[in-house]
Amino acid sequence: MTYAVSLADIEAAAARIAGVAVETPLLESPALNARVGRRVLIKAETLQRVGAFKFRGAYNRLVQLNDAERKRGVVAFSSGNHAQGVALAAKLLGIPALIVMPADAPKVKAEATAGYGAEVRFYDRLTESREKIAAAIAAERDAVMVPAFDDPHIIAGQGTAGIELVRQAQAAGAALAGVIVPCSGGGLLAGIATAVKALSPATAMIGVEPAGYDDTRTSLRAGVRTPMTPTHRTLCDALESPCPGELTFPIIKDTVSDVAVVTDAEVAEAMRYAFAVLKLVVEPGGSAALAALLAGKVEIAGDGPIALVLSGGNVDPEQFARVLRGDI
Amino acid sequence: MTYAVSLADIEAAAARIAGVAVETPLLESPALNARVGRRVLIKAETLQRVGAFKFRGAYNRLVQLNDAERKRGVVAFSSGNHAQGVALAAKLLGIPALIVMPADAPKVKAEATAGYGAEVRFYDRLTESREKIAAAIAAERDAVMVPAFDDPHIIAGQGTAGIELVRQAQAAGAALAGVIVPCSGGGLLAGIATAVKALSPATAMIGVEPAGYDDTRTSLRAGVRTPMTPTHRTLCDALESPCPGELTFPIIKDTVSDVAVVTDAEVAEAMRYAFAVLKLVVEPGGSAALAALLAGKVEIAGDGPIALVLSGGNVDPEQFARVLRGDI
Repeated sequence: MTYAVSLADIEAAAARIAGVAVETPLLESPALNARVGRRVLIKAETLQRVGAFKFRGAYNRLVQLNDAERKRGVVAFSSGNHAQGVALAAKLLGIPALIVMPADAPKVKAEATAGYGAEVRFYDRLTESREKIAAAIAAERDAVMVPAFDDPHIIAGQGTAGIELVRQAQAAGAALAGVIVPCSGGGLLAGIATAVKALSPATAMIGVEPAGYDDTRTSLRAGVRTPMTPTHRTLCDALESPCPGELTFPIIKDTVSDVAVVTDAEVAEAMRYAFAVLKLVVEPGGSAALAALLAGKVEIAGDGPIALVLSGGNVDPEQFARVLRGDI
Repeated sequence: MTYAVSLADIEAAAARIAGVAVETPLLESPALNARVGRRVLIKAETLQRVGAFKFRGAYNRLVQLNDAERKRGVVAFSSGNHAQGVALAAKLLGIPALIVMPADAPKVKAEATAGYGAEVRFYDRLTESREKIAAAIAAERDAVMVPAFDDPHIIAGQGTAGIELVRQAQAAGAALAGVIVPCSGGGLLAGIATAVKALSPATAMIGVEPAGYDDTRTSLRAGVRTPMTPTHRTLCDALESPCPGELTFPIIKDTVSDVAVVTDAEVAEAMRYAFAVLKLVVEPGGSAALAALLAGKVEIAGDGPIALVLSGGNVDPEQFARVLRGDI
């Protein structure tokens, strides 16, 4: 089977983003190790540019546009982190960008996207289709659509976090038993899994989805992509994709051992733990992997070192304060 | 002039704490660089054990106690971070610890200190003397007093952050024009200054104190230690020492170029910046250096790279939420 992305693609992406993206640290907390009973290495993508891993893929996609494409500009739709990633990458490369965002996106994400100079077009989540709006604008402007996950360059860009993670774990003397990654459309999970499985085949890959949005778990069990109809929102605004991607799913199917599902309460607890013990600001979706680990929902054989990704830290201060107060 | 601490002492301390303390990362945020107009490297001691640099000095002090001293135990007084540092170091070394803390210390600091297994004795900041209480208990138990800053082993321990900082900056290709460090009794500032001036003599050292507690600045201008009488509290509960130490001041006098003074409003603004942009949880006193930089209160010649220390992240969630809401 040929996948959309290979280790060579991810290495090429790593060369493209070098010196532009942040090589985020792999942190270790003795307190978390003690709580879990094994070494836990934390890939802090919260410390990436725009506060989330999304900059990696967006920059890797946009830097490969030719001059004519750059002039025509890019269009994307996103609830917030991909929006910021595309907006900042476009700004750095001098490319006009228009982002279609839900009207109820976290303020901090919408403001940052506009702050990077992108044009923001809000839509009503209940009555409008972001796909149609974005496609219409892209057609009208002859602009390039930049998908949030189902694109080889996006997946390869996200996978650069996986190459770093493996190299940093080796430098820390850790032979990883497993890696836990939040999952929405699966770009980050597929990218990291491709890198990890190529460089460290014995390492188990685990995805984490929020309750009510466990389409990847359902699809893995069915063996085919199985879209779901969401019946309610989740605290994890970044993880609301209702179906794995055409390109991400085949990779996930062949590399990921299991997908854990976390509740809003478990996510909020993980955010409070990150605040109180790790001293890190993590958004709901960004803390899904930590939530699954703390809630005992991840099984990785043995007691060898594991790693997890904190994938984003863009959370409205009002929401963060509510989580700290225990209201969520 | 002979100082209480030399680079060799700090190197010896670094060997003692290796594998026990965290080698905290030196972070870099392109967004902060752009805001300040030069490279800013962030020594994140918030990610140290106990959430503050204090573990370094405490462990370096306690690990050098002999068997008889270890049996008799240790006593310390502290508003919170030194308390936690001593409590955890004592726990790791199997030493009984009693910590004298103000009754109005941040809850998170008091709970963590007790959580590490130390006996906590609260006192009333207005009517009781923590020095007298601690001295009486130490005499009664024949226990070892562990000072918060005025001790060569404590200073040497804190200085290990300086050795790391210089080495990490070199690895990042940064010839540091200056280093900015929060200052209370001066243990961290004196320790880091000793390391930095020995390894990188051209680097300027800058201290930062909270308004109303600028005893180090006053002392530097007078040329002699000049205690002050506090007239009000500061948001920076960790920086309320009213006088530089006997051992720290001579070092600071000969190594530190300037001391900036920051207001509560500037500190709160820095905490919000750390939350929103850096995605780091920083307590008020821990963000003093960042506050001074953001408020334009630090002058370091040229446009070369600088470093700053985020010295602690132990803040009550209620207070953090108030800061996020802008109530402080």
